[in-house]
Amino acid sequence: MSENRLIYLPLGGAGEIGMNCYVYGYGKPGAERLIVVDMGVTFPDMDTTPGVDIIFADITWLKENRNRIEALFITHAHEDHVGAVGHTFETLGVPIYARAFTANIARGKLAEYNVEGKAVRTVSKWPETVNAGPFTVGFLPISHSIPESSALVIDTPAGRVIHTGDFKLDTTPLVGEAWDPKLWEEVSKPGVKALICDSTNVFSPHAGRSETTVGPAVEKLVSEAKNMVVATTFASNVARVKTLAEAGDRAGRSICLLGRAMRRMIEASVETGVLTGFPKVIGPEDVSHLPRENVMLLVTGSQGERRAASAQLSRGKYNGIELKEGDLFLFSSKTIPGNEREVIRIMNQLSEKGVDIVDDSMGDYHVSGHANRPDLETVQNIVNPQVVIPMHGEHRHLREHVRLAEKNRRAGVLAVNGMMVDLSGNEPRVVEYVETGRTYLDGSVQIGAMDGIVRDRIRMALNGHVVVTVILDEQDEPLGEPWCDLMGLPEKGRSNAPLVDVLEEDLSQFLGRAGDKVRTDDDKLEEGLRRVARQTSLNEIGKKPEVTVVVSRLS
Amino acid sequence: MSENRLIYLPLGGAGEIGMNCYVYGYGKPGAERLIVVDMGVTFPDMDTTPGVDIIFADITWLKENRNRIEALFITHAHEDHVGAVGHTFETLGVPIYARAFTANIARGKLAEYNVEGKAVRTVSKWPETVNAGPFTVGFLPISHSIPESSALVIDTPAGRVIHTGDFKLDTTPLVGEAWDPKLWEEVSKPGVKALICDSTNVFSPHAGRSETTVGPAVEKLVSEAKNMVVATTFASNVARVKTLAEAGDRAGRSICLLGRAMRRMIEASVETGVLTGFPKVIGPEDVSHLPRENVMLLVTGSQGERRAASAQLSRGKYNGIELKEGDLFLFSSKTIPGNEREVIRIMNQLSEKGVDIVDDSMGDYHVSGHANRPDLETVQNIVNPQVVIPMHGEHRHLREHVRLAEKNRRAGVLAVNGMMVDLSGNEPRVVEYVETGRTYLDGSVQIGAMDGIVRDRIRMALNGHVVVTVILDEQDEPLGEPWCDLMGLPEKGRSNAPLVDVLEEDLSQFLGRAGDKVRTDDDKLEEGLRRVARQTSLNEIGKKPEVTVVVSRLS
Repeated sequence: MSENRLIYLPLGGAGEIGMNCYVYGYGKPGAERLIVVDMGVTFPDMDTTPGVDIIFADITWLKENRNRIEALFITHAHEDHVGAVGHTFETLGVPIYARAFTANIARGKLAEYNVEGKAVRTVSKWPETVNAGPFTVGFLPISHSIPESSALVIDTPAGRVIHTGDFKLDTTPLVGEAWDPKLWEEVSKPGVKALICDSTNVFSPHAGRSETTVGPAVEKLVSEAKNMVVATTFASNVARVKTLAEAGDRAGRSICLLGRAMRRMIEASVETGVLTGFPKVIGPEDVSHLPRENVMLLVTGSQGERRAASAQLSRGKYNGIELKEGDLFLFSSKTIPGNEREVIRIMNQLSEKGVDIVDDSMGDYHVSGHANRPDLETVQNIVNPQVVIPMHGEHRHLREHVRLAEKNRRAGVLAVNGMMVDLSGNEPRVVEYVETGRTYLDGSVQIGAMDGIVRDRIRMALNGHVVVTVILDEQDEPLGEPWCDLMGLPEKGRSNAPLVDVLEEDLSQFLGRAGDKVRTDDDKLEEGLRRVARQTSLNEIGKKPEVTVVVSRLS
Repeated sequence: MSENRLIYLPLGGAGEIGMNCYVYGYGKPGAERLIVVDMGVTFPDMDTTPGVDIIFADITWLKENRNRIEALFITHAHEDHVGAVGHTFETLGVPIYARAFTANIARGKLAEYNVEGKAVRTVSKWPETVNAGPFTVGFLPISHSIPESSALVIDTPAGRVIHTGDFKLDTTPLVGEAWDPKLWEEVSKPGVKALICDSTNVFSPHAGRSETTVGPAVEKLVSEAKNMVVATTFASNVARVKTLAEAGDRAGRSICLLGRAMRRMIEASVETGVLTGFPKVIGPEDVSHLPRENVMLLVTGSQGERRAASAQLSRGKYNGIELKEGDLFLFSSKTIPGNEREVIRIMNQLSEKGVDIVDDSMGDYHVSGHANRPDLETVQNIVNPQVVIPMHGEHRHLREHVRLAEKNRRAGVLAVNGMMVDLSGNEPRVVEYVETGRTYLDGSVQIGAMDGIVRDRIRMALNGHVVVTVILDEQDEPLGEPWCDLMGLPEKGRSNAPLVDVLEEDLSQFLGRAGDKVRTDDDKLEEGLRRVARQTSLNEIGKKPEVTVVVSRLS
């Protein structure tokens, strides 16, 4: 009979930034009791996922092992850690544990699916713990760019594991708990089997800066501004929002929050007690009653999101407020790779309005929420684990993080999504490859990344679409001519006649030539018509469109 | 009778980076004789231009004024300055002037349209000049990231104008002519009416670095590498390619050029004499015969282009060559904003192969080809023009560049695409707004950005597509049921039945209910069927697809 074992299995986040979802198990091989850490989303883009609303890890493996799951733990309230709790609840339906602020946000996600708030159980910080099957789990405070971010201290019969979640080392984070090396030393003292560690900033060579370093630059900027000031940052970065608001307040400006997420996050922070002393805010309807130099707007959309307040303000009015020549717009943020085009578009639209733009490249207006390379080394030295397993990062980050560990003579394991690692023995090893992937929320339907649905959309976007319609009578003779409807294709091509006419002519000739064998066989007929439509298009316009053939038989 | 005037009219490049196309005119208002400077392209993206091959300025205005155009001058051989000479030649057909290297590249573009090479006339550098109607134009050497980049000295009866083209201030550019402040002083001495000046790097606060600063870091990296080395940069950056090749050569490595553009650019450089002493190269078929540590590949695709050598090497074999664990891949380049996702994808694929990646963030492996803020000031001080008109930049760059000029007590004019500026008097002023836009090369057809074709493709990509087919008999009664073909849509929705069945059922019911007025009217019938298809889809899958309705009448 085989021994119990302790396993680690990333389903999302290990090989990408975003979509975090990790599994730990303890028990007999194949019958381990399981806990899940985080259930996050990642965001679609036009290149690979047009029309998709949101993306999260394929949880087929969890669904198949539903009876073995004890609980889901959420480390913090960023979308890439909590965003999919609502979308997956019907499938999993396990108890969810989180600290107060995170629980507040998670309950909001569940409410969208009419799931009651009690599905989420609020846990206090370490040393409080939760028992979940063979696991005892505690929330160990750590600083990050959102309140109450926590590492998980996961105790198992095979030893203690620390799962860092996302973190930075900030002893003065302004809101939420500071990095407390003494506490971490104490928790690590009994010995730590594995440190599962955030990797996103492993290529940043210098130690990270504290949140407090942002205030002075912002304060100077805002106090010197002559007209309206607008600042954008992630709404969930409550400390930053507070810094911005206080700078405005001290400069004699009334603060107005714009954007649903901005108001939601501040509300959640106040409700759960993580935020106090936030300056009084005014509603958008009050802005027009004040001189422009007495107003500061704090707005969503630092990543250029089309529907967020920043984008709307750059295009025109939002909530009745319009920016004007001489106003100042501060990006207290860093553009996430991939969002450059959208952010730059907003900057240029603001420039056209005569608005002055300030961003992180022009001063100390932003700090990262993640641990840089030296910070990772600091944590590894304090925790002193038997093995470091990098998580939350692209392949290049995980690989570099393993190298960093090895440079410091620690064991490191590169485990990407789907690799099940057995942590029980002295040498961790990959014991199984689980099929993983991505699930797309598309409108109200969850579809698989490999279903071909999005692939077809991409093809239509690249190639255009032709619908060919043919009617055959009872004797399989064409009734009238075939005809075509085009979408996303030029009207005219090489021969300077309408493309639709050239296509119909060629299809008609094909039908005239086609023998009984083709005319009586739907597949052959469709295949032939499709081939002609594509070839004629290639000749005329230099590209082969997608073709839908509709054959109607009166028989 | 009105006076002659000197006009400046940007058609592309003023309000964007890329797609440069500028017009100068001299003569009676509305009858000025014209010259065109540059005819470049910009690149499509999936967000806004799916399926498009290349983009250039809408030249409708030039076509309408074809008889007034004397010539087209090309400042240098980058795609965003020369890329559209072939695509527009049939429309414009004016003489093209360029220096030898640029002319070589331009002739290649024309050859794709079977236009003879003599359409391009080779001009030597300043003090040689070309007469073009009222203009006398000379090519004033200036350093940039491609050989023989030149500013244009444009003499007119209303005074001298200098159009910088793209440039940097490099006194040691390695290949091509150095920045020569003495020469520029001399040319500026008679007085310069207007300086039309590159703006892309106006936000870069420090003086630019010389091309020579790249060599030492590359040489150290390559000499210490243990296995195969691959380096990518823009093929047209001949100096950089030479630096990379020499570093490889000195480290005892054979050089192999991969990618069509890489070979094309080196050939053109050798043919026109701008490049000498390039190390001997080997063909891809010889690579396998050599030890990996004796090979260095110089490859295209630094911006992550899907079909270029870098991307293909990251995915698998290219020309029989495959990268392996421990190889080194150097990005001697900067990722252009908007290309991050593609470049990062390649980096991660290389990381999966165990290839070590080095980029500009890790050392001095790249320098920009454009003048930074202090460099712009240097040129403005030397030229000392009556007015600075920023070109080649997004709106935010042009605006900042005007501010920079004004800070130094110079007049600056913010003129974006379509603004015609009269430079004749002492105060330049906008005298006309010309309609401008973008032309898409789509397969072999040129379409307008506003034609709605690409918009329809984007809609299909976001929403999916439904084809509804209905046949009506001679009495306008439905013959059989309506049916649907779906593309890019989920198979099942809310009711867990196939979406196509639910749609056909609802459409059938609609047809059954529809009165004579609807059934006999194609527009009403189509409108009704479309509405039902969209509403049913919304209920089932939470999104409204694009719908094509095909009504066939047997009458």
